[in-house]
Amino acid sequence: MSETPGPDQRPDARTADLGFARVDLERAARTGDPEVVYGAGKTPEQVAAILTTLHTSHPDRAVLATRLSAEALVAAREAGATVHETARAATLGPLPVPRGRVGVLSAGTSDAPVAAEVALTVACHGSEPVEIRDVGVAGLHRLMAVRDRLDEVDCLVVVAGMEGALPSVVGGLTGTPLIAVPTSVGYGASFGGLAALLGMLNSCAPGVTVVNIDNGYGAGVAAARIARRSPDRAPR
Amino acid sequence: MSETPGPDQRPDARTADLGFARVDLERAARTGDPEVVYGAGKTPEQVAAILTTLHTSHPDRAVLATRLSAEALVAAREAGATVHETARAATLGPLPVPRGRVGVLSAGTSDAPVAAEVALTVACHGSEPVEIRDVGVAGLHRLMAVRDRLDEVDCLVVVAGMEGALPSVVGGLTGTPLIAVPTSVGYGASFGGLAALLGMLNSCAPGVTVVNIDNGYGAGVAAARIARRSPDRAPR
Amino acid sequence: MSETPGPDQRPDARTADLGFARVDLERAARTGDPEVVYGAGKTPEQVAAILTTLHTSHPDRAVLATRLSAEALVAAREAGATVHETARAATLGPLPVPRGRVGVLSAGTSDAPVAAEVALTVACHGSEPVEIRDVGVAGLHRLMAVRDRLDEVDCLVVVAGMEGALPSVVGGLTGTPLIAVPTSVGYGASFGGLAALLGMLNSCAPGVTVVNIDNGYGAGVAAARIARRSPDRAPR
Amino acid sequence: MSETPGPDQRPDARTADLGFARVDLERAARTGDPEVVYGAGKTPEQVAAILTTLHTSHPDRAVLATRLSAEALVAAREAGATVHETARAATLGPLPVPRGRVGVLSAGTSDAPVAAEVALTVACHGSEPVEIRDVGVAGLHRLMAVRDRLDEVDCLVVVAGMEGALPSVVGGLTGTPLIAVPTSVGYGASFGGLAALLGMLNSCAPGVTVVNIDNGYGAGVAAARIARRSPDRAPR
Amino acid sequence: MSETPGPDQRPDARTADLGFARVDLERAARTGDPEVVYGAGKTPEQVAAILTTLHTSHPDRAVLATRLSAEALVAAREAGATVHETARAATLGPLPVPRGRVGVLSAGTSDAPVAAEVALTVACHGSEPVEIRDVGVAGLHRLMAVRDRLDEVDCLVVVAGMEGALPSVVGGLTGTPLIAVPTSVGYGASFGGLAALLGMLNSCAPGVTVVNIDNGYGAGVAAARIARRSPDRAPR
Amino acid sequence: MSETPGPDQRPDARTADLGFARVDLERAARTGDPEVVYGAGKTPEQVAAILTTLHTSHPDRAVLATRLSAEALVAAREAGATVHETARAATLGPLPVPRGRVGVLSAGTSDAPVAAEVALTVACHGSEPVEIRDVGVAGLHRLMAVRDRLDEVDCLVVVAGMEGALPSVVGGLTGTPLIAVPTSVGYGASFGGLAALLGMLNSCAPGVTVVNIDNGYGAGVAAARIARRSPDRAPR
Amino acid sequence: MSETPGPDQRPDARTADLGFARVDLERAARTGDPEVVYGAGKTPEQVAAILTTLHTSHPDRAVLATRLSAEALVAAREAGATVHETARAATLGPLPVPRGRVGVLSAGTSDAPVAAEVALTVACHGSEPVEIRDVGVAGLHRLMAVRDRLDEVDCLVVVAGMEGALPSVVGGLTGTPLIAVPTSVGYGASFGGLAALLGMLNSCAPGVTVVNIDNGYGAGVAAARIARRSPDRAPR
Amino acid sequence: MSETPGPDQRPDARTADLGFARVDLERAARTGDPEVVYGAGKTPEQVAAILTTLHTSHPDRAVLATRLSAEALVAAREAGATVHETARAATLGPLPVPRGRVGVLSAGTSDAPVAAEVALTVACHGSEPVEIRDVGVAGLHRLMAVRDRLDEVDCLVVVAGMEGALPSVVGGLTGTPLIAVPTSVGYGASFGGLAALLGMLNSCAPGVTVVNIDNGYGAGVAAARIARRSPDRAPR
Repeated sequence: MSETPGPDQRPDARTADLGFARVDLERAARTGDPEVVYGAGKTPEQVAAILTTLHTSHPDRAVLATRLSAEALVAAREAGATVHETARAATLGPLPVPRGRVGVLSAGTSDAPVAAEVALTVACHGSEPVEIRDVGVAGLHRLMAVRDRLDEVDCLVVVAGMEGALPSVVGGLTGTPLIAVPTSVGYGASFGGLAALLGMLNSCAPGVTVVNIDNGYGAGVAAARIARRSPDRAPR
Repeated sequence: MSETPGPDQRPDARTADLGFARVDLERAARTGDPEVVYGAGKTPEQVAAILTTLHTSHPDRAVLATRLSAEALVAAREAGATVHETARAATLGPLPVPRGRVGVLSAGTSDAPVAAEVALTVACHGSEPVEIRDVGVAGLHRLMAVRDRLDEVDCLVVVAGMEGALPSVVGGLTGTPLIAVPTSVGYGASFGGLAALLGMLNSCAPGVTVVNIDNGYGAGVAAARIARRSPDRAPR
Repeated sequence: MSETPGPDQRPDARTADLGFARVDLERAARTGDPEVVYGAGKTPEQVAAILTTLHTSHPDRAVLATRLSAEALVAAREAGATVHETARAATLGPLPVPRGRVGVLSAGTSDAPVAAEVALTVACHGSEPVEIRDVGVAGLHRLMAVRDRLDEVDCLVVVAGMEGALPSVVGGLTGTPLIAVPTSVGYGASFGGLAALLGMLNSCAPGVTVVNIDNGYGAGVAAARIARRSPDRAPR
Repeated sequence: MSETPGPDQRPDARTADLGFARVDLERAARTGDPEVVYGAGKTPEQVAAILTTLHTSHPDRAVLATRLSAEALVAAREAGATVHETARAATLGPLPVPRGRVGVLSAGTSDAPVAAEVALTVACHGSEPVEIRDVGVAGLHRLMAVRDRLDEVDCLVVVAGMEGALPSVVGGLTGTPLIAVPTSVGYGASFGGLAALLGMLNSCAPGVTVVNIDNGYGAGVAAARIARRSPDRAPR
Repeated sequence: MSETPGPDQRPDARTADLGFARVDLERAARTGDPEVVYGAGKTPEQVAAILTTLHTSHPDRAVLATRLSAEALVAAREAGATVHETARAATLGPLPVPRGRVGVLSAGTSDAPVAAEVALTVACHGSEPVEIRDVGVAGLHRLMAVRDRLDEVDCLVVVAGMEGALPSVVGGLTGTPLIAVPTSVGYGASFGGLAALLGMLNSCAPGVTVVNIDNGYGAGVAAARIARRSPDRAPR
Repeated sequence: MSETPGPDQRPDARTADLGFARVDLERAARTGDPEVVYGAGKTPEQVAAILTTLHTSHPDRAVLATRLSAEALVAAREAGATVHETARAATLGPLPVPRGRVGVLSAGTSDAPVAAEVALTVACHGSEPVEIRDVGVAGLHRLMAVRDRLDEVDCLVVVAGMEGALPSVVGGLTGTPLIAVPTSVGYGASFGGLAALLGMLNSCAPGVTVVNIDNGYGAGVAAARIARRSPDRAPR
Repeated sequence: MSETPGPDQRPDARTADLGFARVDLERAARTGDPEVVYGAGKTPEQVAAILTTLHTSHPDRAVLATRLSAEALVAAREAGATVHETARAATLGPLPVPRGRVGVLSAGTSDAPVAAEVALTVACHGSEPVEIRDVGVAGLHRLMAVRDRLDEVDCLVVVAGMEGALPSVVGGLTGTPLIAVPTSVGYGASFGGLAALLGMLNSCAPGVTVVNIDNGYGAGVAAARIARRSPDRAPR
Repeated sequence: MSETPGPDQRPDARTADLGFARVDLERAARTGDPEVVYGAGKTPEQVAAILTTLHTSHPDRAVLATRLSAEALVAAREAGATVHETARAATLGPLPVPRGRVGVLSAGTSDAPVAAEVALTVACHGSEPVEIRDVGVAGLHRLMAVRDRLDEVDCLVVVAGMEGALPSVVGGLTGTPLIAVPTSVGYGASFGGLAALLGMLNSCAPGVTVVNIDNGYGAGVAAARIARRSPDRAPR
């Protein structure tokens, strides 16, 4: 970067410098999680380059790229990555053997991209996602139909927009650890997901924890960390 | 009021001037509703005086006073009014013969004062309140136990604080007109009832309408106006 | 959805699975209301497909699609639906025989789309809409000219943007049930309809209830549910 | 103030230093307005001392003290000032001969203190206040009864809490300059007067200008400055 | 509008119905102001049609159209109107003979469009605008250079974005009536003009009144109403 | 409650009715958690009565009461409960045998009450709390000194006020599940804990989940549910 | 702290444990600043104990205690500390020899406590405060009278409430480093200092930096760090 | 500007009038800083013209243009300016000889444009920027690796988005003056940088001062003013 006088960056053995980004190569050692590329604001070329660099440095485990534009999804596929359309994400390298199970509940089709990001993140971080869709609070009979399954997983991620009431209802039905993800689905006084976020933070069901609006990735990381600590259970 | 130069208030045959307030005497003719005294910010003496004035002008129908302090409740009782402790309200004069029924649902003991204000307002405005308590979303079995009763009333008022999810769940179970009342119950990111208010405004159950935070009176007026228009039904 | 490991969706007899959406086929039985397609975020093809599926499952009653893009309106028309330009909506199948009347008041031309959505929703949900336009608070003589008609309907829906004062003024003139719809019309400190929403929630006229910003659909559902419960009245 | 090292205040011929405050003695020369003491946060002794100091420096014109506590009102009276209970204010010295007239409209008894502060401020700043009370938007007949008088004044100040709709309605009836004062009257989603403030800023009646919440003083200053510029008119 | 059942609009002798809008023809009689077309959200054809209709109904006085897009400006010009580029506005018909003067102060080039809208509105509403530019608070010497001129006008309109401090400084220099217009100029924590709006509402200079963000039109109306009431003064 | 007409509450075998509250007796069966009394807004007598009732119904496991006033703490102690001063809480009955460990980190003495509520809740819900105090981000050496211990627990709860940065720093050091608790400690632009809440929701460390402001109880429930699922580990 | 199971706090040689607080003894070594006790929420006894402990550990330099209640000021004086009434603070031990000068500007008497806290903090942190009071933007002549002095200091701290315009005006007059402190002085739409804070963040004068509302301490620390780095200048 | 009647701008010897802007020619004399062109909202032609005008008036020192669009960068280059891509800025004329050093810390690649604007502004305002990148709080080892260098500069500017925690951590490691710059990097509850801004304002590290969101220019001005006052130090 020639335009600023006196830049100063000494090499760091634990990172790879791509010019536009310095890539952390030992994150897995520190936290047990894979490397992840946050695609928002990056060009398709940058996404492909980072995916390739990280994959080359450890071909034995997956790299995950999230929040990809349509163009970045194409570039990722051309770089050899597996593309996940609904989740707007891509993976390169083999997924880990899963341990434990994470239930991913969502209400409507609008929440599908966030729920898919949760599920894919869970799979990349070492646990098995189990998606349960179309269980909104305004149609309780559907939720009641899956009630028993809430106790068969090691962690629940509940994705909801608008008023964000689903985690409260689910949280009243089970003692399984539960992470709520507000989505920006809504209009007017939803204020871009704020209504759902506040609803979840004020849940009357105890033990509900919350992540940022649309942060399926963060919820997936947290859920996988919880589920993969679980003792083995008999296969379904 | 001698301190302001040039005040200018001509007498109005339709009001009674008490010095500190001008009381509207023909509200009932205009809207079919009783006179109501909003007690917040009024002294016990003022509350008692307005109650008495209004009662004298039409002894055949009730006057309602809401948001009364403990002292104002005492003054109202001494003025001959019936005091309603939980609702923090008082009535003077006979209640109208009810027409139609209004279901008043609430979740916790903290919501009780607002729910009681709804019920009393409904009774004063010409309909019959039916209270259903302890039906929070985190304990669905209780709500399911009263499910059939939701269709037996002409209007529902659903009172809830915290995340305000109850109207969404109830609204998914019935097509009865439904008015949601957010309460200021909560702390932190409930922001004095804002979370519940936003949740209700963004309800995924269609047809939910909302009033101001803690506005049990307003919800009661609206519900009674709806229910008392209903055709007669067989008594329970 | 092949990209997420372990999806899990068992068939449900009460819904039709279109791949991108599961369509609720028994909503009418539960609430007495028609099926509705919320068009925002759906492709024209999806809108047409859902309309057709729902219409096929019950050709005797209307399906309503709202918040349609120009392209979706075209697709709906080609699928045989009736298109309502101002309301940005479409219907497929015969409207129900109306019972009761709903007055729909609005102030300016900017509020027309929301008012039209209210009126169409009312018609689809079994009541008769009566639109009264150009009655803003800054021109009281127009409102006064329609004053008598406010008592001739079973429910009022009042649509207003900017400061949202119209419901307060109308609410002071009549005891008819009144639902207020804030619109996002305005700029600067209107904050996308927040000013109108807050104004309506704080209305000094008792009995005003409120829906989300621009939520003409929700107001129409609520109003029709109220009006269609009314006893028969003599035709106008 | 001995606790801070190195204070540095050189005497200024145009101010009087009372130790706890430096009093501006030539404000009138600069703006044509009287000196004013903002009483909030001042002790009764301080209020009395400033009143007396200012009065002594120009016994021929009034000093105004606003936002006085009950104790400060007593202290002001003992210092020889005229106390205005409703306005929570006091004046010392003769009021100026008024020029022009300012109409001060308000809706309910809760807005009375702010309206009284407006009226008194107008009188102190050289114009004649004309108070018109109990003209809320939910009772239009009262407002219509005073309609002709809106054009008989040189400026209007409209005081309202809750949804703050009154200025829009009044502004549609007249072309007289109009200043709106939101009050903190309300609860819940009124957010301490924010709803009224936003409503007034978004008024659909053109030409409405607004001051801070409860700022009767500011509105009175602005109104008097406008009205006292008016050409003479025949006395009422 | 054929898509909504039961529309209901009786003719009103005081308005002209253009199909997409009903135009108020007697506004001038009621308030002394000209008709104004708010162009936001209207097509160029609609703007031209309304301008022409209003001009035809009273060719002797101007019609003003504000908030015009580039295309609407072209259409207005083709319809015979005079176009004001900076103000993004157009006028059709002769301006009134001005009475009184309004000073319009602004700080930077970014505020120019709002200041120009103020000035043009003043001219259309019967007073003479006097623009004073480039007088930001961070360059006091420029403001001081025009200090004497602040007392030579009958009303001041002060336009400012960012922190909105200019009205406070100007208000401390003069007793002339002063209207502040916050603009949406700024970024980050200016929140679209909110910072400037709050700053102006909290001005320490008494008598400052405020309009909505970017509302040059509203400020111009208010200022002209004030200035044109002024007694004649000698020409400059 | 005699003041409201037509209350309607049928007995429910799974609850105990105390008049002022209906107590849920089978919560433990449903979620594996103990009964908890939320003390805010309850009288000392009510707290003592609920504690005793719940304890009597299952003397073999603890009841927890939180958010107790000083008076309620006294009443709880007199009822035989163990009082926890810092946590402002009380327990009655034996704590469960812990399984797994929860690290509770906090920065300053002001956060102590919330951290203590977390720790006590963890103990009541079946896990072992390990408190680590005085590890604020502005003194990294203290945090670094306990770094190895972050991996020795099954879940971390990080309590912080002001800017709420501690969870981000801790989350960068470990892959242990981490729940962040914002506290209302701060002033000015902390807005009662909002700054810390937003900071935690936007944490750059992946996998951080968040609860409501000051909600130590909720964080404790969530953490215990996670930790007690962990496989046995060797004792420290 | 006996009520929480399993607390865990190993001794740290660099701190002194007082039971209710752990006191940092080597802050000065790390940053060159004195120890400071934040008094809000601490009992008078705690304040006195911490002051004494810190003073004993290094009697050669001052300890500063801020935000003290009236009772804590008494306790501090009895412990031998010097009390600073206006700043609501106390110091124990000799102040450092000052290097460089910091100008502390404020507008009104209401801002005096914050300005005094700035000045005292500056003195405790090794520079010389120079207070300049009563220089509000609505009285520019006073500010102009001290204009030359703005360049005679090494750093400026500008304290202002309400609209917070003073830093913009001062920042336009000088290139001296300038720190702005918003105060919570104001009412209504000042929202506890938010208006002033936003105003300062949006200052049109470049180079203005800002601290939290009422954070005189933080501004004083920053200013002293800047000023004491300055090369020596000739004494005044 | 012909469309507004009565414009009024007298020539000012200290500015150059370009028609669309009046350029301040003596800013440097007043504050010691260079002229700066704020490019947002200006056309490429305007940017080039102002750069050229200012450069011609003083060819011996640099002019800085910030917030340039891609087109404006091209126009600036064609006008002879040096373009700084990352900073989206351009300079024309020789940079001053630097005095003192400013450390510019940032966490991620997303913050690079703001950090580059800081560095370039510092260089233009007479000090030497030293950039230190990739030191986010979630990877403390990188920050610890540069710890010693924090004391080798005269001022620090810390750039961070999301939760904005970096300034608190850095501020705990050093006593060097520190200016924090929140960036709009983030999504959901980051609210366009508000979360980072609030975090920095509430920093638990004393002495942190803050500028507006994304205001790299303002931080650079402040930092250079501080650093260039420093006494000479030995070269690195």
